[in-house]
Amino acid sequence: MYNDTITAISTALGEGAIGLVRLSGPNAYEILQQVFFTIKGKTRKSFESHRLYYGYIADPAIPADPLDEVMAVYLASPRTYTREPMAEISCHGGSVPLEKILNLTLRMGARHAEPGEFTLRAFLNGRIDLAQAEAVQDIVRSKTGPALEQALGQLAGKLSQRIGVARQKLLSALAQLEAMIDFPEDDVPFASVSPQLGETLAEIDTLLATADAGQIYRQGIRAAIVGVPNVGKSSLLNALLRNDRAIVTPVAGTTRDLIEETLNVRGIPVVLVDTAGITATEDMVERIGIERSRQAIASADLLLLVLDSSRPLHSGDLELIAAVQSELAIRPTTKAMLVLNKTDLNQGENENYKLESELNQKLPELPRVSISAQTGDRLQELEDALANLALGGQNLAGRSLMITNTRHRRALERAREHLLSAIASDEAGMVADFISIDLRLAMEAMGEITGESVQESLLHEIFSTFCIGK
Amino acid sequence: MYNDTITAISTALGEGAIGLVRLSGPNAYEILQQVFFTIKGKTRKSFESHRLYYGYIADPAIPADPLDEVMAVYLASPRTYTREPMAEISCHGGSVPLEKILNLTLRMGARHAEPGEFTLRAFLNGRIDLAQAEAVQDIVRSKTGPALEQALGQLAGKLSQRIGVARQKLLSALAQLEAMIDFPEDDVPFASVSPQLGETLAEIDTLLATADAGQIYRQGIRAAIVGVPNVGKSSLLNALLRNDRAIVTPVAGTTRDLIEETLNVRGIPVVLVDTAGITATEDMVERIGIERSRQAIASADLLLLVLDSSRPLHSGDLELIAAVQSELAIRPTTKAMLVLNKTDLNQGENENYKLESELNQKLPELPRVSISAQTGDRLQELEDALANLALGGQNLAGRSLMITNTRHRRALERAREHLLSAIASDEAGMVADFISIDLRLAMEAMGEITGESVQESLLHEIFSTFCIGK
Repeated sequence: MYNDTITAISTALGEGAIGLVRLSGPNAYEILQQVFFTIKGKTRKSFESHRLYYGYIADPAIPADPLDEVMAVYLASPRTYTREPMAEISCHGGSVPLEKILNLTLRMGARHAEPGEFTLRAFLNGRIDLAQAEAVQDIVRSKTGPALEQALGQLAGKLSQRIGVARQKLLSALAQLEAMIDFPEDDVPFASVSPQLGETLAEIDTLLATADAGQIYRQGIRAAIVGVPNVGKSSLLNALLRNDRAIVTPVAGTTRDLIEETLNVRGIPVVLVDTAGITATEDMVERIGIERSRQAIASADLLLLVLDSSRPLHSGDLELIAAVQSELAIRPTTKAMLVLNKTDLNQGENENYKLESELNQKLPELPRVSISAQTGDRLQELEDALANLALGGQNLAGRSLMITNTRHRRALERAREHLLSAIASDEAGMVADFISIDLRLAMEAMGEITGESVQESLLHEIFSTFCIGK
Repeated sequence: MYNDTITAISTALGEGAIGLVRLSGPNAYEILQQVFFTIKGKTRKSFESHRLYYGYIADPAIPADPLDEVMAVYLASPRTYTREPMAEISCHGGSVPLEKILNLTLRMGARHAEPGEFTLRAFLNGRIDLAQAEAVQDIVRSKTGPALEQALGQLAGKLSQRIGVARQKLLSALAQLEAMIDFPEDDVPFASVSPQLGETLAEIDTLLATADAGQIYRQGIRAAIVGVPNVGKSSLLNALLRNDRAIVTPVAGTTRDLIEETLNVRGIPVVLVDTAGITATEDMVERIGIERSRQAIASADLLLLVLDSSRPLHSGDLELIAAVQSELAIRPTTKAMLVLNKTDLNQGENENYKLESELNQKLPELPRVSISAQTGDRLQELEDALANLALGGQNLAGRSLMITNTRHRRALERAREHLLSAIASDEAGMVADFISIDLRLAMEAMGEITGESVQESLLHEIFSTFCIGK
C-alpha cells in the first residue's frame, strides 16, 4: 500500500449537475473528517463505511464558509476500487466548486493523482490484473456497444483467464522439462512436452485471429468518402449520418483541417474523414475536388469511392480510380469499395452495363454496392458491406472474446515466436535447457498482458493515457 | 408528489472516470432493484437507504449481460434532493455505458427528465424555494469564487430570508389596513402604516443597490481591447492571460468569429473579446486595425482603449478615440478606460506631458492607467481599475448579499414601484382600500422571487436553462 493519499476530480470536465472529487490512501478518512461538516456546521465523529452523508465542505479553519453542499461517503479498505481507504465527495458539477474542493484536499495534504493512478493502485494492490486495468479505460472510451462489451468482458477477467490457462500449460511443460534437467540420471519416465506446446500455440493463434477485428471494434476505422463533384458525396454523408446515430465526441482537438464525423456502423466506430470541402466542392471546379479527395485518401484506412451510376466514367473518375489504385499498391492495408450512387436516376440498363464492365476491367477486386443516397435505397447493404470490409470478412459473434489491444497483440505475437522456436527445438531433439529458455520467454511475454511480468516504464506508459481521476 | 419517475445522466458530457445516472420518483426503488445485480449475479432483496452497493447493471431479461460495473445507492424519501425516493447509479464515465444505463432505466418505465426537473421537483415538493432552486444552476455555472459564494449564500436561503422579512412587514401593514377597511366604525386606534412601508422601501433600495455588481459577478462583463496596430494590444492580452488564470469553458459555441478568453479579474469573470485579428493586426495596415476595433467596440460592455504613451497621438488614435466617444454617447451603459502602454519606452517626460494634456482635453472623464505590458509593470493597478470600473465603483465585500439575478432585480423594481405608489397614496390620505391594492401587488412581486406567487410559464422558463440531470 502507498503511504500517500491521492485526490482528483473524477467526473468529466464541463457543466454537469453532479461532480465528484475522490481520494484514496491512508489519510482519506482523516481528510474527509476534517473538511466535511453537517448542515448544522458540526464535524462528524465518525463515518460508517459505504454510507452517504449530506452536508457541506469547508476549510476547517473557516467552517462558516462553505465551498459547496455535498453528499460524501467514506469507503473502508479493502472494499474499495483501489483496496485502499477512499473518500468520495459529490458536489455541484461546475468547475469552480469542483476545483475549490480539490484544492482544499490538496491543502489538507493529499497529492493530485496522476492520470489513471487510482486504477494503477487497484492493480498494484492486487485487486485487478493489468489487462483488467486497461479495460477500465476502454470502457470509458468505448464508442459502441460491441466495444463496451469487449471491455467489460476484459474487466471481468475473461482475457486474463484464457491467458492464465495457456500460461499454466506452459508452466507445467516447463516443470516437466526442468525435472529432466535437474535429474537427468533419474529414471523419470520420458514424456514429450509437444502436446502442451501445440495446444498453447493453437490457443494463441485463436486469440490472434481476433486481433484485427478486435482492434477495429475498439479503435474504430477511418473512412473517407471520395469522388469527383456531383456524384453525391454530401448526400451519402448525410444519409449515413441520418441512418446511424452519430457519436458525439466533445473532446478538444478532434476537428482539425479535416472534418470528422464518427458513425456507429454495425457496432464499428467509423470516423468519416471529410475534407472541409466535401459539401463545398459541389460548387467547385473538378480539379479542386480531386485534390481534396487525394488528401482524404491518404488519411484514411478505408475508402468509399463514389461514382455516378447514371453516367459513364469520365476523366475525373478515371483519375480518382488511378489515385485509389496507387494508394492500394503503396499501402496494402488500405481497404476500398465502390459505391455506385444515383440508382434512382439510372434508367438505361445499357449505360449501367457499360459502367459495370468498365469497372470490372479497372477495379475488378473491389467490393461494389449500388445505392441511392437520395432515396436511401440499399443504404443497409452499403453498411453491411462497409462493416464486412472493415472487419476483413471476419464474422465474429459480438460476444466472443477478442484481442482488442495492440499491446496484447504484440505480446501474443512475441509469445508465439518463442513458442515456435521451442517447438522447433523440441522437434529437432535439442536438449531440454534449450527449449526451456524459449518457454520462459513465451511465458514472460504472456505475463506482460496480465502484468505478472511488467516493467515500471510500461506501467507508466499504459496509465498515462488514462483520464485524470480514474 | 409526482406520479412518474424521471431519469437522467447527471454528470457532464465527455470522458470522465465516473458517470452518474439518477432517478427520482415513486418507482426509483423498484427500477433499481430490477436492474442492479450483485457481482455474483443475484438481485438484492432490499436496499438500505443511503448505503452504497457494488455490483453491475443489466437488463433483468438478460442478467448475464452486464451494461457496466457500478456503485448504486437508494435514497429513501424524504431525505433526498427532490424529497422523492431516488436512486443513483455511478458507472464508468464514458458516453456508451452511461447511455446504455440511461436507456435501460427508460425501458424500465422511467421518463427522461427535462432540464432542471430534479430541482423543479425539489421546489414543488417544498424542500427549497424558487430563489434557492435558481442558486443551484448559478453554482454550476459560477466562474469565480465570489460568484460561487453568492450562489451558495442564495442556496442557503440568505436572499429568501431577507425577502421573507420584508414581505412579512408588508403583510402586517396590510393586516392593519384591512382591519381599518373591515371595521371602519370600530374604535380601532389609528396607527399609520408609513413606518413599515418606509422600512421596506429602504430594504428594497439596499438590495437593488447591489444589483449592478451582483449581475457582474454572476454573468461577467464583456471587455474589448482596442487600439491601432503596434500599441501593444497582443502584449496586453498575453500579460493579462499570464497574470490571471484564464477560465476554461469547454462549452461548444463560445468561440465564433470573435475570439473570446475569459479571465478572472478580482473575482469578476471578464470575457475579453478579441477580434480574430488582434494578434494579426500588428502586421496589417492601420485601416483594417481600426475597422476591427470598431467591431470589438460594438460588442463589448467595457472598452480598454490602448494608446502608445511613448509617442504623441496620431490620426489613427484620434479616429479610435472618436469611435469610443460616439459609442459612449449612443450606449451610455458602456464603460471605457484608457491604457497608456509602453511606459518602459517612455523616456521623454515632455512627450508624456503632451499626451496627457491631449487626453485631458479629449477624454477627460475616462479613468487612465499607465502600464508596460512588456515588463508587466503596473498590471495590478490596471486590474484594480478594471474591476473598479466594471463594478461602477461599488466596493462591496465579497461576502455580503447581492442581487445577482436579473429576474430578482426586475421583481424588486416592480415591488418598489407599487410600494412608492402605496406610500404616495398614504401620504395623500387616500382610503385604505387604495393603499392595500398596491401593497398586495408589491408583495406579489416579492413573492415571485421566492416562488410564493409564480406562474407555471415562468417556472418553465427558469428551469429550461438548467442542465439536464440537475
